[in-house]
Amino acid sequence: MKTMEAILKRRSIRQFTNQPIAQDDLNTLLRAAMMAPTARNCQEWEFVIVQKKETFQKIMHIHPYAKMLEQANCAIIVCGNTQREHAPGYWMADCGAATQNILLAATSLGIGSVWLGVYPNEERMNGLAKILNLPEYIKPLNIIALGYPNEKKEEIDRFDPAKIHVEKW
Amino acid sequence: MKTMEAILKRRSIRQFTNQPIAQDDLNTLLRAAMMAPTARNCQEWEFVIVQKKETFQKIMHIHPYAKMLEQANCAIIVCGNTQREHAPGYWMADCGAATQNILLAATSLGIGSVWLGVYPNEERMNGLAKILNLPEYIKPLNIIALGYPNEKKEEIDRFDPAKIHVEKW
Repeated sequence: MKTMEAILKRRSIRQFTNQPIAQDDLNTLLRAAMMAPTARNCQEWEFVIVQKKETFQKIMHIHPYAKMLEQANCAIIVCGNTQREHAPGYWMADCGAATQNILLAATSLGIGSVWLGVYPNEERMNGLAKILNLPEYIKPLNIIALGYPNEKKEEIDRFDPAKIHVEKW
Repeated sequence: MKTMEAILKRRSIRQFTNQPIAQDDLNTLLRAAMMAPTARNCQEWEFVIVQKKETFQKIMHIHPYAKMLEQANCAIIVCGNTQREHAPGYWMADCGAATQNILLAATSLGIGSVWLGVYPNEERMNGLAKILNLPEYIKPLNIIALGYPNEKKEEIDRFDPAKIHVEKW
């Protein structure tokens, strides 16, 4: 799939079939994530791959919008490693860029995905840290639920000229 | 260009030719940005497009790593609108994802780009706010310098299995 097509077609998918995601494809998503840029190339990301139903159940207890994990084949929890970032406060945008690479790579492979926000919600961050045994310096940004789509979403166009400011505000 | 090819080929480009970027292509980059996901679909981004040499000079005075703006054709300053975000602290990752869409769309169009960090460096944020006349609630995340590449960078592979954690940390 062409780059702009993936960018325009990517939508949040919350209904999945039971078709499993191949390990090779999962590695492609993780490689995509690790090709994103980071401040001073610190690559301050870590990825926790969850596939056990039992872990999904625990996550659904601490995240109010994670119901689709019941159908998901796999989830990637994108985390920032605050011991590796260039300076405090860079990891969120860097991990946001890495996440977008995962979502686009998934779209191009026909895999559906949805970004479930965790940071900066402390309740979700602490709950997830406990479930995944994260050290204090590892901060979960989000949960990306993954699976083959069992819903179709229309293409939309969010282009909004009001968000564009020429030369200054 | 295929999605994975753009993801793997994107590198920070700091040497540009003097070939201008067409307005249509600039709009494609901005459309790509606005197709990224945001928490609760708040679309809390704003984009300032800078093309005047005089503004580039001012930015080079307040940003220590912005020398390549001397050669750039154009820059996009990606900002978070803190009055529009879902809750405080979401805009950085959301604007990071939008930035990645710009970088990938640029790569697919043969346009070179580099992400210059601004947030969370207060000196750079305040300096840029002054130059661009940004209201207090608009936070600049970065400056994306753009132009046709005048350097070639080798492909690299940053895939690192040590960053992958299965089921838990």
